[in-house]
Parts: sequence; structure tokens; C-alpha cells
Amino acid sequence: EEGFSFSDHSHRRFNPLAGSWVLCSPHRAKRPWLGQVEDAPGEQRPAHDPSCFLCPGNRRATGATNDRYTSTYVFPNDYAAVHAEQPDCSTDSLAVVAGENASSALFRVESARGQCSVVCFSPRHDLTLPELGLGEICQVIRTWQGIYAELSAKPSIAYIQIFENKGAAMGCSNPHPHGQVWALSVVPSEPAKEIESLKAYRQARISTNPSACMLCAYVSAEEDNAAAGEQSSRLVLQNKSFMALVPFWATWPFETMIVAKSHVASIADLCESQIADLAEIMQGLTCRYDNLFQCSFPYSMGLHQAPTATHPDAACCHLHMHFYPPLLRSATVRKFLVGFEMMAEPQRDLTAEQAASRLRAQSSTHYKL
Amino acid sequence: EEGFSFSDHSHRRFNPLAGSWVLCSPHRAKRPWLGQVEDAPGEQRPAHDPSCFLCPGNRRATGATNDRYTSTYVFPNDYAAVHAEQPDCSTDSLAVVAGENASSALFRVESARGQCSVVCFSPRHDLTLPELGLGEICQVIRTWQGIYAELSAKPSIAYIQIFENKGAAMGCSNPHPHGQVWALSVVPSEPAKEIESLKAYRQARISTNPSACMLCAYVSAEEDNAAAGEQSSRLVLQNKSFMALVPFWATWPFETMIVAKSHVASIADLCESQIADLAEIMQGLTCRYDNLFQCSFPYSMGLHQAPTATHPDAACCHLHMHFYPPLLRSATVRKFLVGFEMMAEPQRDLTAEQAASRLRAQSSTHYKL
Ligand SMILES: O=P(O)(O)O[C@H]1O[C@H](CO)[C@@H](O)[C@H](O)[C@H]1O
Ligand SMILES: O=P(O)(O)O[C@H]1O[C@H](CO)[C@@H](O)[C@H](O)[C@H]1O
Repeated sequence: EEGFSFSDHSHRRFNPLAGSWVLCSPHRAKRPWLGQVEDAPGEQRPAHDPSCFLCPGNRRATGATNDRYTSTYVFPNDYAAVHAEQPDCSTDSLAVVAGENASSALFRVESARGQCSVVCFSPRHDLTLPELGLGEICQVIRTWQGIYAELSAKPSIAYIQIFENKGAAMGCSNPHPHGQVWALSVVPSEPAKEIESLKAYRQARISTNPSACMLCAYVSAEEDNAAAGEQSSRLVLQNKSFMALVPFWATWPFETMIVAKSHVASIADLCESQIADLAEIMQGLTCRYDNLFQCSFPYSMGLHQAPTATHPDAACCHLHMHFYPPLLRSATVRKFLVGFEMMAEPQRDLTAEQAASRLRAQSSTHYKL
Repeated sequence: EEGFSFSDHSHRRFNPLAGSWVLCSPHRAKRPWLGQVEDAPGEQRPAHDPSCFLCPGNRRATGATNDRYTSTYVFPNDYAAVHAEQPDCSTDSLAVVAGENASSALFRVESARGQCSVVCFSPRHDLTLPELGLGEICQVIRTWQGIYAELSAKPSIAYIQIFENKGAAMGCSNPHPHGQVWALSVVPSEPAKEIESLKAYRQARISTNPSACMLCAYVSAEEDNAAAGEQSSRLVLQNKSFMALVPFWATWPFETMIVAKSHVASIADLCESQIADLAEIMQGLTCRYDNLFQCSFPYSMGLHQAPTATHPDAACCHLHMHFYPPLLRSATVRKFLVGFEMMAEPQRDLTAEQAASRLRAQSSTHYKL
């Protein structure tokens, strides 16, 4: 009689950062796909596109003109989700939409302020992160550091979210390499959950180890697991300061996390050699992504770190980046997290170990070169 | 000086069922869309398609042949995410992927068993829920009741998720009208959170009202709000037993919830007149959806109710259905919940009141008729 096998039998894995579960059905990858196919990303683009709102020297939708920038370039989002100034939301304003129930726990509302910026990674319209040089990626990281430091100094800002949507499949409306920064007057739900988990982990161990950190422990466990052999390895690549891995509890088929190997609270704390190490891992990971299906691999990526440099729980936070790529089988077949996933629980069709092994097998040279 | 306006100013709303927040940026609907456009759904289809795996009398991918059914039709999912029989997941099996760390809180795993079925709503390949007659929708509901009763009786089943993915944009691989049922040996994350919220709500009020229910209170508050006028109404339609509304905390642009007006724990508890009332609301809502952008409106829909009839918290549960449709502006432009939403917090571009008002304005006659 055969025993339980992670690559054959359904199981749930717990995500200790988000505090949620994911259902893993590895045999499901065998099912034929008859549904929607995406347009294959990665068409040829010119180095400068006169109609692009993000290229140097061009006019944007709202009429402003971009500088003739030669490195990274930051400007305010013309369609910001939050603004610095707006009236307060009082119980009287709530009464307009909730009447007599404005004071009920069922109609809770908060006003949200902040600011949104766009960060162009390069003046070149035709390149993406994995195609930039290491020096250029370092410059992206230094630009993030500058924004984080500047926004952290504003008392009105409680949280800074740096992220990138890459590819049409991830709602990106312009292929020019760029990310965004949305800074808010409140700490949003996802980072709030992670901070609670990190705090609870430390609290439970505080008497023996006052600086106990879940992600420090996780990094070290995954180093052991990778050393123990292929079957237990979720590592994609690493260097002195950072590790890229498929987390044990990954939801998206080729989801990865880049984690600082030492306890670094935020991007602001990285020294020059750590910046270079992070750039190397970002390039190495996104290059393997592109090579996997020989296409410009779509994803949403974002940094989780101390909400701001002065947040009371900043010391608990541990810098990491999440990459959530939708593709499952090829450049045109994605995973849909829909009915069951929305109503019940995220579900995946291959194990984290299988995904990591496929990413590790990719060349570190970009397929276009 | 002007005050706070829900349709002009950014705010967050709290979802008391899921225990999470949503960021609402109503002015953002004005931004131009330059990103991916979907194929417009709703092409003409034959009443019977010889190549469809779901049509009566046809052969499926795995070789089985469908009955020549004339009403609803239930069969086992050929690519089930969970199976009834599989080995137990022991600490020894976990050691294969987690080595020495198999006992650590960072590598938590549970085996997951269960069964998955497909529920064809009609023998007709060319119809969808809003195009079926009320009698046929009643038959779909009765079929769900039968499945729920049968699975509830199995000690190995802890949770029954009934859902529908409709449209290619929602990962549906076959336009034949059908839904699915995934039944599991565990209660998944989303319903577990809702049950916790419902229990906490009752617990906090138990001394004065032992049967206090958040959704009973919500239904009655929304009846008041709707009666107070257009500005505070989130109601789409209602009858004696059910209400369809855009919840105050909706995430998806035209997200709705169908809620039982009286405290009904599960679909199994509906009498014939309640079944007829639910069918009427399902038809009326999906018809307005189709009319909104004159297309076969994609969505993922699912029932939340008592996990099984014998679950210890069954009495706390209150039957409702969630509809999560992705479209935002037209039949081809959807909302992407991506970078900021995945990393930080769901974000929407119009208010729940605006969405409800647009849905209310739709005709109750299907645009194809
Ligand atoms: O089973 P189907 O309809 O082929 O598959 C669809 O629904 C499932 C349940 O929501 C998802 O896991 C799949 O990603 C989706 O494509
Ligand atoms: O601001 P963009 O890139 O136009 O918009 C994209 O990213 C935003 C932040 O994740 C999302 O809210 C939008 O739905 C998406 O299309």
C-alpha cells in the first residue's frame, strides 16, 4: 500500500504570514484546458514610442509633459486613487448613505487620504526589469528608497505600497517599464495581517528570543530544506543578502517571494552591497520567469516592509517582495482564481516544490539574448 | 466650503462578514482605459453542440457518456480537485518536503478529501440562467437542495461549496450553462471567516437577543435605507423572501449579494414558495446584469450557508449568495484587482450606491427578447 505523496494527493497548506490556507490539488495539472487563452505577451516595441504617456519628453493624458529623463523618473499619478486633501468623513456625511444606521457596526467607514506616484524604471520603452542592467535595477531600488524616505517623513502618511503590475493580463495599461507607489493615511488590510502575524510570532517567543522573527526563521529553514535535496527545495536562487523562493504556501502557480536573509525592516535600511544583491536577485528571478514560457512573463509584484520608517511596529517587519504571476501552463494559459477560490479558498494545481524545480531549471541568460 | 461626499472622496468601507476593508476611489472611474480589452461574450450558440462535453448524450473528455437528460443533470467532475479516498498525511510524509522542520509552525499541512460534481442547469447549450424559465431555475435550486442533503449526510464531508463560474473572463471553459459543487473534509478559509463573524455578532448580543444575526440586521437596515431614498439605496430588487443588493462593502464593481430576508440556515430549509422567490430574484438579477452592458455578463457566483446541515454552527448561518462580476465599464473593459489590491487592499472605482442605482435602472426584460 502506498503512502501520502505531496505530488499526488490533495492537501491544504497554511500561510503563516497571511494567516490563511491554500488548497493544493497537484493531480489537477493533468486536466485539459478548453477555456480562455491570453494574447501572448512580448511583441517587439520601439525604444521610444511617441504615443506613450511614459516615454521621456512626451505629453501625458492630462497635458503635463515628461522630463527628458535618462534614468528612473517619478511623477504624480494623474488618476490617483487617493488625494492629500479632502474633507473629513463625519457621521453626518455617513448618514447620506446609511441613514439612521450611520452609527451601526454594519456601516463602518473611514476617510482615506494619501498620494500616488508612477515610477518609470527606464527611459527605454522596449525593455522590462529582467532586460535592464544591474546598475539600472540598482537605480530603481535607490529611487524606491528615496520615495520611501520622503513619504515616511510625512505625518499624514501611515503606509507606503510600492508595486508593479506587469503585462496586460495583470491590468497594466502601458508596456513601458514602470511601477507605482500608493501611500495612504491608513495601514491597509494585507500588510496589517502580516504585521499581526509577525508580532504574534515574536510575542510567543519573546522570553527566550526578544528579536524572534518568523521570516528570519523561515529563511533559515528553507536553506536547510534546500540543502537536504531537490524534493524538499523551494529555493529558486540566492546570494549573500537575498533569497528568491516559492513559499511553502504559494497560491499562484509560480508565485515567489524575495526575502532579505538578515532582519532588515525596510528598503531604506539597505546598504550599497545589499542593493546590488537585491538587484541581482530581481534580475535573476524575472529572467527565469521570462525563460519559463519564453515570453515577457506577466505578474503583480510588491514590497512588504515596515509601513513607514517610524511605524511603531517597524522593528518587527522584515523586508520581502511578493511576485504573483498568473500563468500556469504556457504563455497563453493562465490560472483563474475564481468561483471556488473566491467563495471558499485559494486552490492551486501544482506543488510549490514542482514550481520551484521548474524555475530553478531555467537558464540565467535571458531567452531574447 | 464643501463637505465630504461619498461619490467624490476616497474612503474605506469595512466588510463585517469577511472582516476586511475595501478602498473606494469613486473619482477614479473617470480615468481613460488603455489596457487589455476582453472578447465580448455572448456569441450565438446552437441549442445542442455535438462537441460539448456537457450536452445530453455526448461523450465527455474521459470517455463517459452523458445521459440524454431533459432537466438538470449532475455528474462527478472528471478532474476533481479532491478525492474521497487517499492516504493520510503524516509527519513522516511532511518530512519529505519539510525535512527537520516538519514539526515547525511554518510548515503546517492538512490532508484534504472530498468530492466534486458538475451541475448542468439545462440541456440547452445556448441558454444561461437569466434566459431559463422560472420553473427551470426552481429545478436548479431543488437539485442543489438534493446534493446538499445527500452530502450533508456523509460524515466525511465538512463543507459543501455550490458555485458557478460564468464566462471566459471568469475561467469558465465551457459556455453550456452549468455550475459546480466542491465538497470537502474541512471548512475552507472564506466561510470559516464568515462563520466567525456571525458567531461574534450573536455572542455580543446574546444576553438581550439569543438569535441575533448580522445578516438579519443588515437586511432590515437596507430595507430602511432603500425606503429613505435613492442616495442611500443599495437595493437592486426584492420579493417576499429574498433581497438582491450591492453590499455597502462591495469589492467588485457590480458585486451583489442575494440574501434570505428571514433567518434560513441553508438551501435545504427553503420551502416551495421560497424556492420560487429565490428563482425570481436570481432571474431578475442576472437579467439586469446582462442588460447592463448588453452581453452575457460574466461572474463567479456561490452560496454561503451552513457548511453542512449538521455543522455545530449551522444555526448561526444565514443563507446568501455572492455574485462577483469583473466588468467595470462595458462588455470588454473589466476591473483588474492586481498590484495594490493583492499587496495591500481591494480597491474599487465607483460606490456601491452608484452600482446599485445603475442595476436598478435596467429593464426586467432580457435584452435578447
Ligand atoms: O473546474 P473548471 O471550471 O474547469 O475550472 C475553473 O474553476 C475552478 C474552481 O473555481 C478553478 O480552480 C479553475 O482555475 C477555473 O479555471
Ligand atoms: O493604475 P493602473 O496601472 O492604470 O491600474 C491598474 O492597477 C491598479 C492598482 O493595482 C488597479 O486598481 C487597476 O484596476 C489596474 O488596472
